[in-house]
Amino acid sequence: MKQDKLKKLTLALEKSGLSGLVLNAGPSLSYFTGLHFHLMERPVVFIYVPGRKPVLILPGLEAAKVEGENQLEPFFYDENPRSWNKVFAGVLNSLNLSQATFGVEPLQLRYLEYTLLQLAGEIDLRDGSDIIAGLRSRKDAGEIQLMQRAVEIAEESLRALLPQIRIGVDEKELASELVLQLFRRGSDPALPFDPIVAAGPNGANPHAKPSAPKLEEGDLLVIDWGARYQGYVSDLTRTFAVGKVNDESTAIHEVVQLANAAGRVAGREGGACSEVDHAARKVIDGAGYGRYFTHRTGHGLGLQCHEEPYMHKDNENIMQVGMTYTVEPGIYLPGKNGVRIEDDLYLSPDGPVSLSSLPREIITVG
Amino acid sequence: MKQDKLKKLTLALEKSGLSGLVLNAGPSLSYFTGLHFHLMERPVVFIYVPGRKPVLILPGLEAAKVEGENQLEPFFYDENPRSWNKVFAGVLNSLNLSQATFGVEPLQLRYLEYTLLQLAGEIDLRDGSDIIAGLRSRKDAGEIQLMQRAVEIAEESLRALLPQIRIGVDEKELASELVLQLFRRGSDPALPFDPIVAAGPNGANPHAKPSAPKLEEGDLLVIDWGARYQGYVSDLTRTFAVGKVNDESTAIHEVVQLANAAGRVAGREGGACSEVDHAARKVIDGAGYGRYFTHRTGHGLGLQCHEEPYMHKDNENIMQVGMTYTVEPGIYLPGKNGVRIEDDLYLSPDGPVSLSSLPREIITVG
Repeated sequence: MKQDKLKKLTLALEKSGLSGLVLNAGPSLSYFTGLHFHLMERPVVFIYVPGRKPVLILPGLEAAKVEGENQLEPFFYDENPRSWNKVFAGVLNSLNLSQATFGVEPLQLRYLEYTLLQLAGEIDLRDGSDIIAGLRSRKDAGEIQLMQRAVEIAEESLRALLPQIRIGVDEKELASELVLQLFRRGSDPALPFDPIVAAGPNGANPHAKPSAPKLEEGDLLVIDWGARYQGYVSDLTRTFAVGKVNDESTAIHEVVQLANAAGRVAGREGGACSEVDHAARKVIDGAGYGRYFTHRTGHGLGLQCHEEPYMHKDNENIMQVGMTYTVEPGIYLPGKNGVRIEDDLYLSPDGPVSLSSLPREIITVG
Repeated sequence: MKQDKLKKLTLALEKSGLSGLVLNAGPSLSYFTGLHFHLMERPVVFIYVPGRKPVLILPGLEAAKVEGENQLEPFFYDENPRSWNKVFAGVLNSLNLSQATFGVEPLQLRYLEYTLLQLAGEIDLRDGSDIIAGLRSRKDAGEIQLMQRAVEIAEESLRALLPQIRIGVDEKELASELVLQLFRRGSDPALPFDPIVAAGPNGANPHAKPSAPKLEEGDLLVIDWGARYQGYVSDLTRTFAVGKVNDESTAIHEVVQLANAAGRVAGREGGACSEVDHAARKVIDGAGYGRYFTHRTGHGLGLQCHEEPYMHKDNENIMQVGMTYTVEPGIYLPGKNGVRIEDDLYLSPDGPVSLSSLPREIITVG
């Protein structure tokens, strides 16, 4: 149990009108308990009600994971899914919680757990994301340190990959080699996401998958990759010129580089998240490429690769010291080329600090 | 669009009384559409109603993924989550589906999509897992071939790791090296799960995480690992003796090896899934270790590492040709040692066939 984090949760819940919080397997459960469970066919549910011993409902075969954990009350169920209803109902009844109002995470809670909770009592579920995001999005010094290390691992890995980026190599080869480098340099086995290595027209798809075509002279090459260190992630993008590229490609890279710089300095304590988006978007709009910047400027990151705060144009949420987020403007010209430049930032008491420092200028490879 | 699979889905839906199926991002959506989306904060929802063009609701920035896909009607939403409700309601209204009864996947659908659907109309959601599992669990020849390759990659990787398993090496080092080997030998970047490398008492936790302690003489060493090939997974376990182990350790390994053999031959077309569990469990019960075999005997695998059919003692579902599943009995002596031996099987018309062939006998390492 992470007592310091549960203490903050207690304070946040007191202001919320909720009886407590219900979390299923995933990063928030890990954040508050220090326990790690995969999201699988067997539900793992954490119930936190201030002033009571936290409860965990989990499969019997996971018993060893909570052994010796005295600050948690575990309830086990067996391998027959038809018996789970009864266990859930029993737990809520015995705790006198079968009419409580709980906060849940709509992005994490599944219809499976929802149904088990609904059948267990007259339970009212509300969106508790904001409460959790309010805590998780403000990183402490220890968390920032882990994220800095995740960024370093990613940057070292890309540097090691550079000599292998040549005309004639295919995207998939580069992606595999980059994954090897990430592990060799100390990433946790669960990468935050599969690296994107996308050349030429493939780079015009912001979420492209590496495929077979080989790098050709004149392509722009987008590489979007990240590492994980003790659970915390990095998420970076750089765009390279393969041999000699045309003037339009050089121009859009320059625009995106300026937009990235504008976005990186725009975050401020007490400012809206939208300001970061506006700052980057203004540069791209001003250059006449606004309709080719098809996504928001960034997202928070931490135990998850996408988490609060989101840097989109309508997000009026207020930025606070400790927030960590990406700035990743892009221009995507369908059928031609794409550019994206992404950095990981931390909002310090003195303003935004970039955790990443790999050069952002266009680098010619091949 | 995978027209052959959608055709089978149409037949299954006709018998079900459901208007159609609603899937969010995940393996089932990939199975029916051939499209791959991560489960992220932006919902991607596939709506299939027999006789109509399938619908996909997705973020605008993913537009490139469905370009040229004429057999699908895409609806896009923008980056502001507050606008999503309206898009979902608009789609269901325009299709005249706002009072339909849809099958969903409780293990995949999140409270996020559930809420968007609920707000979009008078929609009735039912558990559609059985319909999907009925199709996905019966693999065709092409799928079996991919799974066979995923098993080969895993086996080759473990063979390459063997010389490095020595007294004094720690679990984490071995796990990292195994991950490197999996990628070097062609696994997709997204492993089915992080390898488990668990020695001595740590091996008595079926879902242990590799940690720092070094291998010691007398430990049993459980390695549970798998590869992914073109989306399809393998999942294997072998248990090794580190140097000289005591008689009890040798004895429980032998019992588990016999239980594994019994489980591997027990599957039969028309038989219940529970028969596989009973066959393996009977051996362990008979040897007096029944209460230390704390989990079911196996699970299906395919696009997911855990999917139907589940081999647990109460599962009376009927086995069919084409099903692929694990047989993985174990004995876990808390504070001492654990053993698990896991193979991947395919139920052929002539009976169960093991896709994996790595020796199951106890091998002494160190």
